[in-house]
Amino acid sequence: MRGVVMHAPGDVRVEQREDPRIIEPTDAIIRVTATCICGSDLWPYRGVEKLNGPTPMGHEYVGVVEEIGSEVRDVAVGDFVVGSFFASDNTCEICRAGYQSRCVHNVPIGMIGTQAERARIPLADGTLVAVPSRPGDEQIAHLLAASDVLGTGWFAAVAAEAGPGKTVAVVGDGAVGLLAVLAAAQLGAERIIAMSRHSDRQALARKFGATDIVEERGDEGVARIKELTGGLGAHSVIEAVGTQESMQQAIRCTRPGGHVGYVGVAHDVHLDGMELFFSGVHLHGGPAPVRRFLPQLVDLIVRGEIDPGAVFDLTLPLEQAAEGYRAMDERRATKVLLTV
Amino acid sequence: MRGVVMHAPGDVRVEQREDPRIIEPTDAIIRVTATCICGSDLWPYRGVEKLNGPTPMGHEYVGVVEEIGSEVRDVAVGDFVVGSFFASDNTCEICRAGYQSRCVHNVPIGMIGTQAERARIPLADGTLVAVPSRPGDEQIAHLLAASDVLGTGWFAAVAAEAGPGKTVAVVGDGAVGLLAVLAAAQLGAERIIAMSRHSDRQALARKFGATDIVEERGDEGVARIKELTGGLGAHSVIEAVGTQESMQQAIRCTRPGGHVGYVGVAHDVHLDGMELFFSGVHLHGGPAPVRRFLPQLVDLIVRGEIDPGAVFDLTLPLEQAAEGYRAMDERRATKVLLTV
Repeated sequence: MRGVVMHAPGDVRVEQREDPRIIEPTDAIIRVTATCICGSDLWPYRGVEKLNGPTPMGHEYVGVVEEIGSEVRDVAVGDFVVGSFFASDNTCEICRAGYQSRCVHNVPIGMIGTQAERARIPLADGTLVAVPSRPGDEQIAHLLAASDVLGTGWFAAVAAEAGPGKTVAVVGDGAVGLLAVLAAAQLGAERIIAMSRHSDRQALARKFGATDIVEERGDEGVARIKELTGGLGAHSVIEAVGTQESMQQAIRCTRPGGHVGYVGVAHDVHLDGMELFFSGVHLHGGPAPVRRFLPQLVDLIVRGEIDPGAVFDLTLPLEQAAEGYRAMDERRATKVLLTV
Repeated sequence: MRGVVMHAPGDVRVEQREDPRIIEPTDAIIRVTATCICGSDLWPYRGVEKLNGPTPMGHEYVGVVEEIGSEVRDVAVGDFVVGSFFASDNTCEICRAGYQSRCVHNVPIGMIGTQAERARIPLADGTLVAVPSRPGDEQIAHLLAASDVLGTGWFAAVAAEAGPGKTVAVVGDGAVGLLAVLAAAQLGAERIIAMSRHSDRQALARKFGATDIVEERGDEGVARIKELTGGLGAHSVIEAVGTQESMQQAIRCTRPGGHVGYVGVAHDVHLDGMELFFSGVHLHGGPAPVRRFLPQLVDLIVRGEIDPGAVFDLTLPLEQAAEGYRAMDERRATKVLLTV
């Protein structure tokens, strides 16, 4: 089959990969319908994360089940499925507590590489969610978003305890930040402040439910959020970048006793204990347990209540993946969908 | 009046200080009945925290109201009161959310110095809680504990979401850690693991409700907690030390999705963002909003349901405060009560 392989920073190729096959009786093989490029794929692309030789890429996917192992019960051949980016058994104590991304048997789907024609999904029952009927073309992008960026933004909003009566600030205007705005709106937040200086992303944030836009960053951004919240800071702040600056900005934007939900994969972030101590905030985040939210997200999408696929602003065939990486790296695109 | 003043690391003196007087109409003057020395007083005593000249010491206190300002309504002259170590109005938005230690008008009582015969307590209505009747001698130590160490341990247990069905681990066997054990027991935790290598403190931890003792520290301590929790880590971990080692130990003892409640004042702590991200824990702490819990704690003490004063293992008259500091510094005492 054809699949994306990263050979070195900046060197992404679509080439022949071995067809996946069932290894464990809990596996499923899916034919990928659509996949995409993640902000986190840019870390190795930019040389920030080290590669260990040529690496199959991709961890977001929707597709059709082609084959199942002998112990798979909840998805069937022919089902259209969405899955999360960590395979999980969804039965262990950690999964039952809602932390499927830390399942005791978790398998990072990034190690499998879903930017390809087919993919083996381990622990299929605990990882995949079947869509009730075959989605129309326009729904495919929405469902694909649920696989990671929507699920991650949603988790960030839940971790930040966005909800009725709350003022929510969102640090980061990538796909996850934008979908965290959508999530905060769905969760009933009273006021949602998107921090963005790109007019196209500001427009999308407003479409998703942002009530205010703050263009300032760093200390000025913090001052602006304080100004908008009676000097106190936001109740809930979502961090969707993963740098020292964005984490500091998020913590400093939050009122004492408020909640920071952080989902940007931390790179060279060091939190000062004394500052954190006196901030009095709650801090929660990490790799989103997308599977916790998937049934609800699929339902919202199928009923047409949310349109998270709007974050995809470039669609390319799988064969042109290299151009997709370039477009995201150069910020010509927020999020690239690859059709297979 | 007589009061404790720290002149330099290791140099604590009891000397003449100016009598306090009402400055704001919301002030009260109390005659201190008992006060104590805090683990955090040892930071400047050991030269870890810098002193800006001679500094009145103390932020824990119980006593009798001698005088009130014209706007004080809820406490009266003659009341026996307990107060928290941050004065708070208890009416602002931050206080109403339960974060009185970050009140928009907060005054650190440490700046006033309650290791003295009298003290001015700002924002008396929002800071002090009157005890329904004059306490007996044996209750005074319990009530004094509520002023900080019990209130702080209780907040840590709440921040760590200790409760029914939960396994709680406590890092730190000082007064706060020991009272966090008591708090976790009161909150209904199923299993409470105290991490301590001192037999006297282990005994007190057991008296307060610890079900297990772990003597190992660092990586070995983490491994032991994992072993006791089916490989997963504790649901709730309380950090009551404030060092890099203790914070790391606390985070690593916690299962993904679990809660770390940290109340040790952080000194030279730097949290690695990537480790925190992949830990998947909730982190919450800071200066405890003791006032949130005081009415409930006073009630439990008055009804004889808890005996937090058991952490005081040395009682000295105020005039011998210097010996009290030495005893705590040399770990000859866990917590020193000063009678006034």
